[in-house]
Amino acid sequence: MSYEVAALSTLVEQFERIPGIGHKGAQRMAFYVLNMPEEEAQKFADSILSARKKIHYCKKCCNLTEGDLCTICSNEARDQTVVCVVEDPRDVMAFERTHEYKGTYHVLHGAISPMSGIGPDQLTVKELLNRLDGVQEVIMATNPTVEGEATAMYLSRLLKPMGIRTTRLAYGVPVGADLEYADEVTLSRAMEGRREI
Amino acid sequence: MSYEVAALSTLVEQFERIPGIGHKGAQRMAFYVLNMPEEEAQKFADSILSARKKIHYCKKCCNLTEGDLCTICSNEARDQTVVCVVEDPRDVMAFERTHEYKGTYHVLHGAISPMSGIGPDQLTVKELLNRLDGVQEVIMATNPTVEGEATAMYLSRLLKPMGIRTTRLAYGVPVGADLEYADEVTLSRAMEGRREI
Repeated sequence: MSYEVAALSTLVEQFERIPGIGHKGAQRMAFYVLNMPEEEAQKFADSILSARKKIHYCKKCCNLTEGDLCTICSNEARDQTVVCVVEDPRDVMAFERTHEYKGTYHVLHGAISPMSGIGPDQLTVKELLNRLDGVQEVIMATNPTVEGEATAMYLSRLLKPMGIRTTRLAYGVPVGADLEYADEVTLSRAMEGRREI
Repeated sequence: MSYEVAALSTLVEQFERIPGIGHKGAQRMAFYVLNMPEEEAQKFADSILSARKKIHYCKKCCNLTEGDLCTICSNEARDQTVVCVVEDPRDVMAFERTHEYKGTYHVLHGAISPMSGIGPDQLTVKELLNRLDGVQEVIMATNPTVEGEATAMYLSRLLKPMGIRTTRLAYGVPVGADLEYADEVTLSRAMEGRREI
């Protein structure tokens, strides 16, 4: 092509590397940057660098934080005897949005998946085992997928002999959904787990 | 919310400001940045700043360029007597992808739209009038929309008295499309513009 602006192509390529962003989307984003006032572009670039530099794992729960401990682990009002094990920091955000759960979390940063070569050593399992002093219950809140299930099973087999109560999220029909469209496995789990009203 | 990582929220907000990116998408992008190696994050931030700083308008055609003149205006092999007027730098890219057009361009950076308060003064019309020395044909390649049409009409009324040939892109059915789904206006324009085979 005879027409090319190097700095623009570089920027488009950078945006294109983000999963889920195609060429057209990357181009639209690059043009948005070109039309930004210069100080806004500076802020944008700074926010990328500062997020990358400042954010690391919480020493205790391996969630993302800027400090030594995350705001949940360092919060005295949270019940430190209950640990909710999740796969991803976004799962913590999802639970926090419920405003119901008052315990702490542990972020595994993945799930056991032999197919992708991810075993317990690639996850923060060791960190979990090292923080169980005083913990009374560990809630397995890994995803309801094959990998999530396997991870929950693996961890509960490790924890039960240590005398710690291990629980799993309830399965059932999602609130607001249409029963007609629920899959068979979910429906039979919902039936199994039925409760007195 | 008791759980928040400031640097992460800032980054999500920055991505969210890009048109077409929602909260979930911005979050996904921010997490992608967090998982980048540090030098990659640096490159990403640099590409934003350098695109914003290096790229400006070509002195002649107002297209985006890093130099004084864009690679098309400074290319002796291009026919400088033909100017194709487009609304946006992306339209130049679209025409360049055809590898057919050998003339030059002029980028208006918009179209006349009284509803949005955009008149000829907000576009690069003055720059177009200042570069007509030796130009024999101006092709109106603004979008086939109300605003694009109005802009093409306005410019052709300015240029015709100066003895410059002004032409407009052909209307018709797009190649590869299904006639069944073509709208009435396009179909009647295609009929009007029919040619001997």
